[in-house]
Amino acid sequence: MNDFLSLAKQRQSDRAFDPDRSVEPEKIERILQAACIAPSACNAQPWHFIVVDNPELKNQIADATSNRLLGINHFTKQAPLHIIIVEEKANLSSGFGTWAKNKHFPHLDIGIAAAHLVLAAEDEGLGSCIIGWFDENKIRQLLNIPSGKRILLDIVIGYSTQNDRSKKRKKTDEVISYNGY
Amino acid sequence: MNDFLSLAKQRQSDRAFDPDRSVEPEKIERILQAACIAPSACNAQPWHFIVVDNPELKNQIADATSNRLLGINHFTKQAPLHIIIVEEKANLSSGFGTWAKNKHFPHLDIGIAAAHLVLAAEDEGLGSCIIGWFDENKIRQLLNIPSGKRILLDIVIGYSTQNDRSKKRKKTDEVISYNGY
Repeated sequence: MNDFLSLAKQRQSDRAFDPDRSVEPEKIERILQAACIAPSACNAQPWHFIVVDNPELKNQIADATSNRLLGINHFTKQAPLHIIIVEEKANLSSGFGTWAKNKHFPHLDIGIAAAHLVLAAEDEGLGSCIIGWFDENKIRQLLNIPSGKRILLDIVIGYSTQNDRSKKRKKTDEVISYNGY
Repeated sequence: MNDFLSLAKQRQSDRAFDPDRSVEPEKIERILQAACIAPSACNAQPWHFIVVDNPELKNQIADATSNRLLGINHFTKQAPLHIIIVEEKANLSSGFGTWAKNKHFPHLDIGIAAAHLVLAAEDEGLGSCIIGWFDENKIRQLLNIPSGKRILLDIVIGYSTQNDRSKKRKKTDEVISYNGY
């Protein structure tokens, strides 16, 4: 990659993948490294990453993300790789911050780690989509995730077969201001 | 930068800055572009970025982040630039997801945008620190942020005077597993 801004612009939510092309283990490892190195409030690292690449299991996970009624996420079955992010208990100081400031720091932390993950995937020539809507209980059961633990995101990764598209974003003066709101 | 993983490894939370060296406007603009291009649930973009570079005002913001009792964040006054992230109301579909899945998507979204922001800063040769602990009401007052809007993060940016240090992270097998928890 040339520079970070180009990488960030290039990365898009991909919803079509080559189902016959799996992701190389060394790429998976570098992507996970990038996620684990992410900063977090009080360095709590309140996350656990479950790599799902078993063909049968990843199809079952994909089924748990799609919803016939809403007609969403059917594409997830094309992807050879899912990385599930489970929220773990934060450390004492981060937990104190969450309580004192009424801000759920683990959600912010996992957002940061997810960004690292998909940007690392992009840099490896892979497409990705961050999925937040799924049947949490079904995934919990499929992956033996202890009850009580929240499953925040499923990141779908593979070789994209989707064309690049231009991004739609709010106008700059709507979201940026200087020295005041 | 050579590759994303190197950039992610290189970036650290910097807590010492050259107070006499301001950040070039074109760098600020590229950093904001990288933040605005971040993905978000249902493309809600539930954020507003306030750039604070006015010398007097940024010192007042810095005061609102430091806490004498806890002895934290005194370094923030050295930084020439603060970018405050205010949470905006998400769109209908993201709001529905937050309600239906009991997951606060705007926190995840703002985590992703914050990651873009600090990684872009790193790529510009700048240091940064993500601050979540501050006197929210004081900052709201200083920047005329409407009451009711939450101020999630203050990202402190400047030319770092801190040495690189190695990162402490949990062991890999503690946070990563394959095809099951």
